[in-house]
Amino acid sequence: MDLSSIKSPQFLKSMNNEQLEKLSSEIRQFLIEKLSATGGHIGPNLGVVELTIALHKEFESPKDKFLWDVGHQSYVHKILTGRACEFDTLRQYKGLCGFPKRIESEHDVWETGHSSTSLSAAMGMAVARDLKKSKEFVIPIIGDGALTGGMALEALNHIGHEKKDMIVILNDNEMSIAPNVGALHSVLGRLRTAGKYHWVKDELEMLLKKIPAVGGKLATTAERVKDSLKYLLVSGVFFEELGFTYLGPVDGHNFEDLFSNLQYAKKTKGPVLLHVITKKGKGYHPAESDTIGTWHGTGPYKIETGDFVKSTTTAPAWSALVSETVRKVAREDERIVAVTPAMPVGSKLEKFAQEFPDRMFDVGIAEQHATTMAAGLATQNMKPFLAIYSTFLQRAYDQVVHDICRQNLNVFIGIDRSGLVGADGETHQGVFDIAFMRHIPNMVLMMPKDENEGQHLVYTALKYDDGPIALRYARGNGLGVKMDDELKTIPIGSWEVVKEGEDAIILTFGTTIPMALEAAEQLEKEDFSVKVINARFIKPMDETMLHEIFAQNIPVLTLEEAVLQGGFGSAVLEFAHDHHYQSVIDRMGIPDKFIEHGSVNALLEEIGLTTEEVINRIRKITPIKQKRA
Amino acid sequence: MDLSSIKSPQFLKSMNNEQLEKLSSEIRQFLIEKLSATGGHIGPNLGVVELTIALHKEFESPKDKFLWDVGHQSYVHKILTGRACEFDTLRQYKGLCGFPKRIESEHDVWETGHSSTSLSAAMGMAVARDLKKSKEFVIPIIGDGALTGGMALEALNHIGHEKKDMIVILNDNEMSIAPNVGALHSVLGRLRTAGKYHWVKDELEMLLKKIPAVGGKLATTAERVKDSLKYLLVSGVFFEELGFTYLGPVDGHNFEDLFSNLQYAKKTKGPVLLHVITKKGKGYHPAESDTIGTWHGTGPYKIETGDFVKSTTTAPAWSALVSETVRKVAREDERIVAVTPAMPVGSKLEKFAQEFPDRMFDVGIAEQHATTMAAGLATQNMKPFLAIYSTFLQRAYDQVVHDICRQNLNVFIGIDRSGLVGADGETHQGVFDIAFMRHIPNMVLMMPKDENEGQHLVYTALKYDDGPIALRYARGNGLGVKMDDELKTIPIGSWEVVKEGEDAIILTFGTTIPMALEAAEQLEKEDFSVKVINARFIKPMDETMLHEIFAQNIPVLTLEEAVLQGGFGSAVLEFAHDHHYQSVIDRMGIPDKFIEHGSVNALLEEIGLTTEEVINRIRKITPIKQKRA
Repeated sequence: MDLSSIKSPQFLKSMNNEQLEKLSSEIRQFLIEKLSATGGHIGPNLGVVELTIALHKEFESPKDKFLWDVGHQSYVHKILTGRACEFDTLRQYKGLCGFPKRIESEHDVWETGHSSTSLSAAMGMAVARDLKKSKEFVIPIIGDGALTGGMALEALNHIGHEKKDMIVILNDNEMSIAPNVGALHSVLGRLRTAGKYHWVKDELEMLLKKIPAVGGKLATTAERVKDSLKYLLVSGVFFEELGFTYLGPVDGHNFEDLFSNLQYAKKTKGPVLLHVITKKGKGYHPAESDTIGTWHGTGPYKIETGDFVKSTTTAPAWSALVSETVRKVAREDERIVAVTPAMPVGSKLEKFAQEFPDRMFDVGIAEQHATTMAAGLATQNMKPFLAIYSTFLQRAYDQVVHDICRQNLNVFIGIDRSGLVGADGETHQGVFDIAFMRHIPNMVLMMPKDENEGQHLVYTALKYDDGPIALRYARGNGLGVKMDDELKTIPIGSWEVVKEGEDAIILTFGTTIPMALEAAEQLEKEDFSVKVINARFIKPMDETMLHEIFAQNIPVLTLEEAVLQGGFGSAVLEFAHDHHYQSVIDRMGIPDKFIEHGSVNALLEEIGLTTEEVINRIRKITPIKQKRA
Repeated sequence: MDLSSIKSPQFLKSMNNEQLEKLSSEIRQFLIEKLSATGGHIGPNLGVVELTIALHKEFESPKDKFLWDVGHQSYVHKILTGRACEFDTLRQYKGLCGFPKRIESEHDVWETGHSSTSLSAAMGMAVARDLKKSKEFVIPIIGDGALTGGMALEALNHIGHEKKDMIVILNDNEMSIAPNVGALHSVLGRLRTAGKYHWVKDELEMLLKKIPAVGGKLATTAERVKDSLKYLLVSGVFFEELGFTYLGPVDGHNFEDLFSNLQYAKKTKGPVLLHVITKKGKGYHPAESDTIGTWHGTGPYKIETGDFVKSTTTAPAWSALVSETVRKVAREDERIVAVTPAMPVGSKLEKFAQEFPDRMFDVGIAEQHATTMAAGLATQNMKPFLAIYSTFLQRAYDQVVHDICRQNLNVFIGIDRSGLVGADGETHQGVFDIAFMRHIPNMVLMMPKDENEGQHLVYTALKYDDGPIALRYARGNGLGVKMDDELKTIPIGSWEVVKEGEDAIILTFGTTIPMALEAAEQLEKEDFSVKVINARFIKPMDETMLHEIFAQNIPVLTLEEAVLQGGFGSAVLEFAHDHHYQSVIDRMGIPDKFIEHGSVNALLEEIGLTTEEVINRIRKITPIKQKRA
């Protein structure tokens, strides 16, 4: 069928399993083709084709509520709810969002870029439903990876306690982003091999009737055996202990199994956990045979071969630069241990893991645990490198404050994907970290101007023993600069002048330095002489240089790819006022709104973080005519 | 014995159980007496007297590492490690800290004011130990309440997976701060009644040998029965599923039981969870008979009667003012639902719970879940009131950003205990919330000048339907002002002039308004005329008034009981520079360091947040002589 003609999932109601299977193939073909051009989360979505179809056939969305956790598995849902025609614009500026988006469709009831939120939200929805004496189903679909996130476990605990009606679909593909870790994973592994729990349970009841009666002390035990039937198997006991009715495991690619279990779940009172086994990448060989997560989310690829369309840059990826420098230094410093919450591939720690398997810890989706575990390591004179995406570090804010910074522990936090990240959009932009880190006492916060300085700042962080230190680095690649052979430390809190000038000063760091230099160069032609400073230490700032700058009393422009409120520019304002300087200071950065998906360049254009705007601002604040006249 | 003579726990090694019991009584007497004068966490500490003694006798602190979670149960540990003589200064300025403190003693290896961090830290310590090929024991002692915190569950999952040697003591007193909630609590309840697991297990093995052999399909099941012995009981199955060896439950007030189990745990490879049942408040009748958490942490009390020494103020407590106003409005607005993470007593929500039992959710120690559950409620057109302490809101930062603010949901966050909290000290100061909330798009952030304005701002928040709105309020009581009978809304983003003046302007809000007024009054005598503005909306600010202020070009002082970096004062600087005003602006607030425990007044004095300093600053920035001349 023409998938673009789908307006709502109603058409599914009249289809039989054979037709649904045909539809599944068509959807797979559609995804493989469309995503080969746009990139996107191909693996997860190929895994949930039948499951999504079955859910939309069995339930009544949007009355019944699907919560996709994480939301990158919602492409099939988007197709079935009338958005197939928009897939050419997937994850592009003003195009279809790669996650559920409430303004896109009434079928998107909950937005999820960060994982493990669906159960809590579902609890809120179930409570609201019951207070309103309404009847709809609330159905979070949560991956086995997302399930290990602490807030999902908090929610399981509460839902089990409150006994609210809810159908939790556990989408178990044996791999979150990277192969799964954690004891829960082995619980799930045992469940997968245990077969159909509720059938075996019946057999067991029969068996137990044959146990000879026993007297005295043992009788109690025998009775307990009977009462405790559900514990007799390697079964859903973990979830049943928490108060859920456990169903499964079910083959998530078999419509008959899916429907019979969904129907059973609908009839069951209280919270149900339906364990569905799916295969990530199902139906597309390169993705299906992926064992480490390469096909979780990708850029464009060639359909026939599965080869990725190569990036044209030869500059190192930032993640690789940082992790490889850590690996190099770890050869000489046994105290270095790497910790990542489920991102060994994204954070390019595979080689570190190979070389130092005992010193590498992928803790799964568990940012809070990762952060405090790093703090625990540091109390024992180890030097943990905590690699974490900026947007996910938000989840460990309290652990950074209470455990790392308050105890002033030597943890090196690698803040990966800082700044705008592009296609993943507003849930993933790494734009808050300066504002939420800068005010924490004891924190050192850095960002390098290029990959050569990057390697030196990594070295600086690893040699620093006076407390926490964090390095921001962007998504994507460095600039392709020449790399020094020898690593060196850079004095904490030191800035550098990257271009001299006398009429105005730009204070900036990281990804916006090239923009500042370009603006300065163009202004030079108009006789504006602009100094550009690499403010590589966001905290502590270079106070000596700041005093020099403000003593000159020439206009200052701060420029950052991060939120303006409470950001680096504000730190500069604070310094100036604390020391009673009266310089004109203007700030450029990200305004007070969430920034949607799109190419980083399109986004920078939208928010006015461009060379042109830097030029405009400098012109505005610099009384150049008068001065030179 | 004279507890003050204790220098180290070594003296315990030679004591027999009878002597230890006598010591226990002496410690209890000591705690009851000392805390009657100073206040403190009496209930939790009376509960762990025998447990703490047993741990220090059986293990070798500080080589073996105790991690107290939460740390307010560490008083007995402090006594046994040489700090009894300091208890007169408990929780007072420059006195003994109410939590473990690494600079106080080498026996304090991990600091815990926030709950649920011990398992992650212990994992870090265990990894470090193994990498160093060292041998010490790592022993987190975690309460049943703290265990429901998401990061503790993340850590359980990881520890079970990695199989590190570790002895987790689960201190189960059936009550965290408020009576416990959650499915885990009912798991623990069943364990408590299940008796001694490892004995019954032996009996069961005998029993199962008697099961007749069965053939065919059932044989598999029978074999599974045998393999799955550990699942046969209402036992430690939850923890065993996660990879722990479960021991217990043990009577935490019986030395013989404690020692035999601790010795068994020491011999067991891999992670052990020893389930110890204790009685909060044990040995002091008023505390022992407490069922709702009144005796968790208290002020001074009369030993004989258990009567609390009454506070002299008749002004309402802030928590009560806010929760009671919510209750009043909830009578007319069915959409209002209250959510608290384990603080129904602290947040004074008991009456709300009584009147609206279906609309009150205490989710246990689970700030992340509470926050996103509130978001889920808001998606269904409910109006959740999320009552949460400022310091604990840190743990839900990502949920506030990603779930509430990004989706612009109508959640009313009551930020209780904002500002300095005093005796609980640096882990509990509510001083970061402005800096970590102000930069989040869509957020409205308020703080009232007194309890009358407080009730109106609560009403304003409950009537506001354009997105998230948060109200900060202090620990302690209001000012005793007259209360309006009718509730009214206050325009979002509106400030008010509380005192007119022409020479300088103080912008402030909440608890520092009286300080500003007093300073202004004193300055008046010296012919300085100072305007004081109640900046009750921290975000959005009153831009009309700000333009008026800066257009006058007179000096401005901002004053806040919150961190300076990225705080309200910075917001004022940002506004001034964004609009190219050149006024002199000075800022007062909390400097860039963690603030220890002590009375709020002593702390304010230490950091220079005093009337005198306000006067000094105004004098410095106001060119009064010239102007009036």
